[in-house]
Amino acid sequence: MKNRTYLDAALKKETDTIPVWYMRQAGRSQPEYRKLKEKYSLEDIVHQPELCADVTALPVEDYGVDAAILFKDITTPFPGIGVPVYIKDGVGPIIDEPIRSMQDVVNLRPFEPEESTPFVYETIRMLSQQRLEVPLIGFVGGPFTLASYMIEGRPSKNYAKTKSLMISQPDVWHLLMDHLAEMIIKDAHAQVLAGASALQIFDSWVGNLNVQQYQLFIKPVMQKIFSSLKACQVPITLFAFGGSHLISEFKQFEIDVIGLDWRLSFSEARAQGVKQTLQGNLDPAFLTCDWSELKQETTRILTEGKENGSFIFNLGHGVFPEVEPSTLRRLTDFVHNFSKN
Amino acid sequence: MKNRTYLDAALKKETDTIPVWYMRQAGRSQPEYRKLKEKYSLEDIVHQPELCADVTALPVEDYGVDAAILFKDITTPFPGIGVPVYIKDGVGPIIDEPIRSMQDVVNLRPFEPEESTPFVYETIRMLSQQRLEVPLIGFVGGPFTLASYMIEGRPSKNYAKTKSLMISQPDVWHLLMDHLAEMIIKDAHAQVLAGASALQIFDSWVGNLNVQQYQLFIKPVMQKIFSSLKACQVPITLFAFGGSHLISEFKQFEIDVIGLDWRLSFSEARAQGVKQTLQGNLDPAFLTCDWSELKQETTRILTEGKENGSFIFNLGHGVFPEVEPSTLRRLTDFVHNFSKN
Repeated sequence: MKNRTYLDAALKKETDTIPVWYMRQAGRSQPEYRKLKEKYSLEDIVHQPELCADVTALPVEDYGVDAAILFKDITTPFPGIGVPVYIKDGVGPIIDEPIRSMQDVVNLRPFEPEESTPFVYETIRMLSQQRLEVPLIGFVGGPFTLASYMIEGRPSKNYAKTKSLMISQPDVWHLLMDHLAEMIIKDAHAQVLAGASALQIFDSWVGNLNVQQYQLFIKPVMQKIFSSLKACQVPITLFAFGGSHLISEFKQFEIDVIGLDWRLSFSEARAQGVKQTLQGNLDPAFLTCDWSELKQETTRILTEGKENGSFIFNLGHGVFPEVEPSTLRRLTDFVHNFSKN
Repeated sequence: MKNRTYLDAALKKETDTIPVWYMRQAGRSQPEYRKLKEKYSLEDIVHQPELCADVTALPVEDYGVDAAILFKDITTPFPGIGVPVYIKDGVGPIIDEPIRSMQDVVNLRPFEPEESTPFVYETIRMLSQQRLEVPLIGFVGGPFTLASYMIEGRPSKNYAKTKSLMISQPDVWHLLMDHLAEMIIKDAHAQVLAGASALQIFDSWVGNLNVQQYQLFIKPVMQKIFSSLKACQVPITLFAFGGSHLISEFKQFEIDVIGLDWRLSFSEARAQGVKQTLQGNLDPAFLTCDWSELKQETTRILTEGKENGSFIFNLGHGVFPEVEPSTLRRLTDFVHNFSKN
């Protein structure tokens, strides 16, 4: 691997340049991807390792970023445990038979990586052995976020069914958490075994819980997951969109990197005692603004980052489909050049 | 008016019982409302003062709450300034010709309350003069939230167009803010003149901004609005869903009440220096849980509330359609009885 700046920053080592990658860097903002989507569904792409490797590698080549992130959906492992799912364009993952009772949870099958999602690990092997000159980040969904899709059956605004099950049927909830933890751990280990150089946990929707709920219903399972993932010996990142109010919990985890959205600044995170490498936190809305505004905001973030210990430049949420690829290319160059000053 | 506990708590006066009302207490959780919706659209109801007064008063009678909140949509004043809007069931407000350029903003008409939304004030007059024994809360949308509907043209997940306009075209943004501020101020004054005893500003989506963006693009217009609303001489409440990270800004406003969602507790808000009366902050997900869990969480909030100065019990977001009316009735009684202990 030629370029290790992402890994070095994650492990708090000095780097010559500031590492940068973009959440959802592979996807609808790229004309090549939109063209593929005319022929293939997201599932089609994920199930074909050669195609999926192309999609994963494309932004590295196009944008010059310092890390690739495996292209898949956080619900990709669901069928492996007996939860059929399909992605509805413009909506998200749909599960026709949601998980809502003890029997539903008991019926879940154990996740067997090479039986359940062999294509995922094959994609990783292709990328890491032959192709990439940057680290490949493997990823998994966080347990609350995965459970919310399983319980609601579709993307939700208020997570009412999820929270109601969590609060009113804690036995069912904790058994589901245990099952999802096992799936997450096995999947993550298999991704690293196949060649992923780092792992990111997207607990995208857990910011809908308050600290008290997080401590009671999520923290124990996260500790279990992180404890097991230590054996992978790769940097671990946690990202929770809208999770600023949970930072006092996140900072206690034995992980390497905490991803921030734009609601919490690097300096505020440090003031709250976060010791981990920070990742973030440009509001992706700036990517559809004029270059002068994007440059100004990026300069502000990079300056703040440099004053606050180890960090990786990224967005505070995924790239929007409307973003021009040339903007991301220019932004990468700007970040890389900035760091040399 | 027989029952003034809501107003007293808002003004930090002692009350015998803890006042309680529920955001979106009038709406789809009520069978009577669902029946009306078979015949009438939301707009139909809002445009017919007798019907709208019935809908507004219904939860006061059914749930025994200490305040009524005017039934309407935050986009109700839009046609009055030349922005046609319709509510699509299951989606939200749709604006076929979004506001995105300087010319669009220049073309907006001034809001003339009694010409634009006479039915709103007629509803208020009917309710306040004849019917209600509790205060009627008038309401307006906050400028960011209103602008987001106007600019996106529909409910948004990421507010990309709104933020992009805000950042890249600050002249357009500030002119739009000025126009919306004028509309908000005139509408709010007219609501109070018609008989509203209090005002709540729902800046529901402003929590998508960070502190820096809020200070630059929103705070000045909020100060202008609050400064003008002081002349109304009624308690003013600000509520921003997911706005915990902006509390350091909200607390500086000359307003009476700050509404919290469940992400920030009463004691945390006090620790951050909030002096205003607090309103909130039950996660509405508890309303679909067993009574034992709802009771336990409510007890926790009420206990914390009593230890932290003046407060009004409410939810941290609107009532879900799935909530049983009997649950809200029971909850109101529980809150009222609790306070006597």
